[in-house]
Amino acid sequence: MADIPARTEIGVTTGPIRGSVKIHVGPLGVAMRQVQLEPSSGEPPLNVYDTSGPYTDPAAHIDIMAGLPAKRRDWIIARGDVESYDAREIRPEDNGQLGPDRSGGVQAFPNVVKRPLRAKPGANVSQMHYARRGIITPEMEYVATRENLGREMLRDYVRDGESFGAAIPDYVTPEFVRDEVARGRAIIPSNINHPESEPMAIGRNFLVKINANIGNSAVASDVATEVDKLVWSIRWGADTVMDLSTGRNIHDTREWIIRNSPVPIGTVPIYQALEKVGGVAEDLTWEIFRDTLIEQAEQGVDYFTIHAGVRLAYIPMTAKRVTGIVSRGGSIMAKWCLAHHKESFLYERFDEITEIMKAYDIAYSLGDGLRPGSIADANDKAQFSELYTLGELTHRAWKSDVQVMIEGPGHVPMHKIKENMDKQLEVCGEAPFYTLGPLTTDIAPGYDHITSGIGAAMIGWYGTAMLCYVTPKEHLGLPDRDDVKVGVVTYKLAAHAADLAKGHPAAKLRDDALSRARFEFRWRDQFNLSLDPDTAEQYHDQTLPAEGAKTAHFCSMCGPKFCSMKITAEVREFAGKQNQGVEGFIATGPTGAETAAASKAAAIKGMQEMSARFKAEGGEIYLPME
Amino acid sequence: MADIPARTEIGVTTGPIRGSVKIHVGPLGVAMRQVQLEPSSGEPPLNVYDTSGPYTDPAAHIDIMAGLPAKRRDWIIARGDVESYDAREIRPEDNGQLGPDRSGGVQAFPNVVKRPLRAKPGANVSQMHYARRGIITPEMEYVATRENLGREMLRDYVRDGESFGAAIPDYVTPEFVRDEVARGRAIIPSNINHPESEPMAIGRNFLVKINANIGNSAVASDVATEVDKLVWSIRWGADTVMDLSTGRNIHDTREWIIRNSPVPIGTVPIYQALEKVGGVAEDLTWEIFRDTLIEQAEQGVDYFTIHAGVRLAYIPMTAKRVTGIVSRGGSIMAKWCLAHHKESFLYERFDEITEIMKAYDIAYSLGDGLRPGSIADANDKAQFSELYTLGELTHRAWKSDVQVMIEGPGHVPMHKIKENMDKQLEVCGEAPFYTLGPLTTDIAPGYDHITSGIGAAMIGWYGTAMLCYVTPKEHLGLPDRDDVKVGVVTYKLAAHAADLAKGHPAAKLRDDALSRARFEFRWRDQFNLSLDPDTAEQYHDQTLPAEGAKTAHFCSMCGPKFCSMKITAEVREFAGKQNQGVEGFIATGPTGAETAAASKAAAIKGMQEMSARFKAEGGEIYLPME
Repeated sequence: MADIPARTEIGVTTGPIRGSVKIHVGPLGVAMRQVQLEPSSGEPPLNVYDTSGPYTDPAAHIDIMAGLPAKRRDWIIARGDVESYDAREIRPEDNGQLGPDRSGGVQAFPNVVKRPLRAKPGANVSQMHYARRGIITPEMEYVATRENLGREMLRDYVRDGESFGAAIPDYVTPEFVRDEVARGRAIIPSNINHPESEPMAIGRNFLVKINANIGNSAVASDVATEVDKLVWSIRWGADTVMDLSTGRNIHDTREWIIRNSPVPIGTVPIYQALEKVGGVAEDLTWEIFRDTLIEQAEQGVDYFTIHAGVRLAYIPMTAKRVTGIVSRGGSIMAKWCLAHHKESFLYERFDEITEIMKAYDIAYSLGDGLRPGSIADANDKAQFSELYTLGELTHRAWKSDVQVMIEGPGHVPMHKIKENMDKQLEVCGEAPFYTLGPLTTDIAPGYDHITSGIGAAMIGWYGTAMLCYVTPKEHLGLPDRDDVKVGVVTYKLAAHAADLAKGHPAAKLRDDALSRARFEFRWRDQFNLSLDPDTAEQYHDQTLPAEGAKTAHFCSMCGPKFCSMKITAEVREFAGKQNQGVEGFIATGPTGAETAAASKAAAIKGMQEMSARFKAEGGEIYLPME
Repeated sequence: MADIPARTEIGVTTGPIRGSVKIHVGPLGVAMRQVQLEPSSGEPPLNVYDTSGPYTDPAAHIDIMAGLPAKRRDWIIARGDVESYDAREIRPEDNGQLGPDRSGGVQAFPNVVKRPLRAKPGANVSQMHYARRGIITPEMEYVATRENLGREMLRDYVRDGESFGAAIPDYVTPEFVRDEVARGRAIIPSNINHPESEPMAIGRNFLVKINANIGNSAVASDVATEVDKLVWSIRWGADTVMDLSTGRNIHDTREWIIRNSPVPIGTVPIYQALEKVGGVAEDLTWEIFRDTLIEQAEQGVDYFTIHAGVRLAYIPMTAKRVTGIVSRGGSIMAKWCLAHHKESFLYERFDEITEIMKAYDIAYSLGDGLRPGSIADANDKAQFSELYTLGELTHRAWKSDVQVMIEGPGHVPMHKIKENMDKQLEVCGEAPFYTLGPLTTDIAPGYDHITSGIGAAMIGWYGTAMLCYVTPKEHLGLPDRDDVKVGVVTYKLAAHAADLAKGHPAAKLRDDALSRARFEFRWRDQFNLSLDPDTAEQYHDQTLPAEGAKTAHFCSMCGPKFCSMKITAEVREFAGKQNQGVEGFIATGPTGAETAAASKAAAIKGMQEMSARFKAEGGEIYLPME
């Protein structure tokens, strides 16, 4: 039964996702998963968006010691605007210097690139820069194919959704992608030193994306687990992964992760910088921070969370909060600002940071260091003051053609969610919003993947481009493998619910295919079309474990004696036999009395005849009892 | 660690919910749970709404053979409008006659009431009838006390919410309850033959309620498990429980459930009626159905789901649906209507049903037999046609002062949820809406408590009065004990998120208390204030099992070396020491450039002095590394 792949001897989870095969579409070989349906269905296979990389491809040779193929390297080189150079030398403090090494030590990645790439002097290698010069990059083409996903199957498509002013196209062309990137409405995080990544877009007019956080911590972790957490997260649908490691072995762990990641990797560089100064926030300097940015840029980090909006003047606004400052990066900067009583160096040096970003094509993820940590603190002055500053910084980054997204809360009751989205769109010029949940209540620790999944679905609908997952362990402990999966699947379903509500053209194809499978008792198709086929089948088998039950035309809810879906099938068959559709049957609108009268007048004549025919033709739909 | 009570030898779960004590408030002894906080918090205990009945009261003597005390019996008798009479005789078919008895047999409840109550000839014993005559019943008083819950603690309360036209009072008076019941905007399900129930209200201007379904099925179950499912469901917060049993032993199982239930019990009588005719829908008759209503009325069922809106004319509207008719009751009636080609006897005999309802004070739960079973079918003509009929029937029931709520979907994408609520309010004259989810996507079987929890929170916010839970096993199998708990807690958090967003005056008290506990590292308070203290503590202990960690001023996310919450505490302390609040610090509004300038001008003079003072006073907040 449980054919959930175990971690192999090489330390990561491989094997296809149940019921699907990996396919590669178009000249760029865009990876997708194809779910094959039972021949009896008469339906074509369904292609679904796939973030899992080569790990789910039985044809791929996986060797994490070698890393993934550098698919993008040729594209990058071909643009002729990069140079390789001797990498910054790795120092002991890059791997942390505080506390005992509980990880058991991390061996260095065997094939570290000693000569990374950067933009030639005066060049700008960001996707936004190309986009604004009218250049359609292979990355943009890849994204277009990847996002289209099934849209060509839609013939008589009627747009059904409320997108709150988004501009979702019926069909995604490379030119559309270019235009969205040029406008800043979408980003394609793609550090030139992470050529292993499969291009993807984050933006309101594309499918809603999700991020999973991984990372060791001062308390417990080991590096093999970290790499497999990446692989495990993307297996279930994480579109990007943030490495939030602290403590020992940060540098080496990150190298392993990036070299083996087909998805963009994000970090919060201030975490590592803090390690380098022994955990004393006030000892942080611009020089140490800058050095950390270069270190991570050379490794290939695709986006940096930079808490440049935590300005000195906003910090006291948090003093009366119920939960003060809960962002780790925010509180580091708050402490620094207070200790020195100076404006944040992240804010003061923002343009210098931007120069680094554009030399490697790293995207900004402007951090919300003052996000609310409780329902009580939602949408307060501190939060929105910071948001206004993030808007200011967005426009500053855009002047240098550097890609930007904006981080958002946090903890927000439902009635205050939309204000977050509306303000962000207005202030940040439609730069992609990237929110953590938000949690819609504080009273359910242990279930915060759900309290936040509610808020995530809603804000995704309103326009958030990427949702940062929350696991069941949020506020309580460190997520394990099961927690990560539950968090990812929860956010995947929230993102999909948002896509449906926005009216993304192809989003509904999967719901409809699954619903048809459900209605027709194609149990295997129902499992395989679901976000988590393993769990779906396992739950089914707990009640009806026999193999025969998977092809049985009943389910455990009603049992073999009676089944509402079977009755419906009979209703349909009967309606068909009578050659009488909805139109023929119903003469008027839906007001009860009228309908009854009209229906009676029209139908009473044939009633007894029809009744007799039904009994003759319909047969007994209940299975005989054993 | 895991002190989750096991089922005792008497078959049900007892013992207090961790960290709380049972209290009884006011002259009627309204049961609540009181969560005691650590003395160090300086905070008063927090009272929370409690549905768990005497089972969580160590002072109560639990004997399921005897049933719960008949608390309401004196109130009912005192009204002088009921008579006792010889009960309908129990027949073998009341306990099902089809298929093998897999339950192992169910013994009869030892003390079945042989002479149930009904209204005296010409009398009407519904709460609505009393309400409309200006009578405030003890049930209404009980509800008022129960709903107020902490509102007296609110001094400087500023209403914060968006209630979409609801009329939520700052303080709930018995007169307010009476008025809501009289208007039909709330119901108090309270069959006079279920005197064991603790009165509760379902209505848009009260706290959002949740329902849990239990029941055996043709495939598997046993009666002891059924009774404990009730006790288990209400332990975690189910406000009402529906017994959806089919097959054998229905009558006896229901007797055990009702006699031991402090919450209203709902049923779908057509399920049992179908059993009585051997599962052949077309053999159903009004006489058999009526007899079943009397049978269940005498036992004390508090509300009946009646699918009287499935009219003949609407059935063919479902023929082109992706998933046809998915309601079991709906498909039973559809089959009957088609077979006879006649209007539904539930619709034709509605006024006769109403006569029964008013003689026992059973509330209608008008069933949505044509609800959508997939995203594709949401908000279609069949669904809304039925809703209009339910509106017509609501007004008809109200003419006889019979309480009514309306059942709603089902499967609905987010952008179509509000239309459901708006139409229901309009068509059904603000009768309480009672929805199943809705599920916001179909692609996550195994996670449908979450796909539906999203929709439930939203529609609860928009105005739905009660949310019918969905468990992780939905569409796949029968929920076990763990599934029931996860379903109940998920719906409890969704209901609470809705209360918060609507601006229920006291809803935020619990969030704030928990957030303060979180901020101050009062781990035990955080667990005890949560919806599921056992799971919260268990998750915490998986990472930091030591007892000391529960009082440690750090958590596993950041570890002892660095903690954002500690930094915030320091920021606050510092701001206090400087005698400098937000106002003194910030001269202008939140636009970045202005603020920076003003702040600089105002603050630059004292900066170096303040910096020095901070370093001298602030101390080192990081704990020394071991």
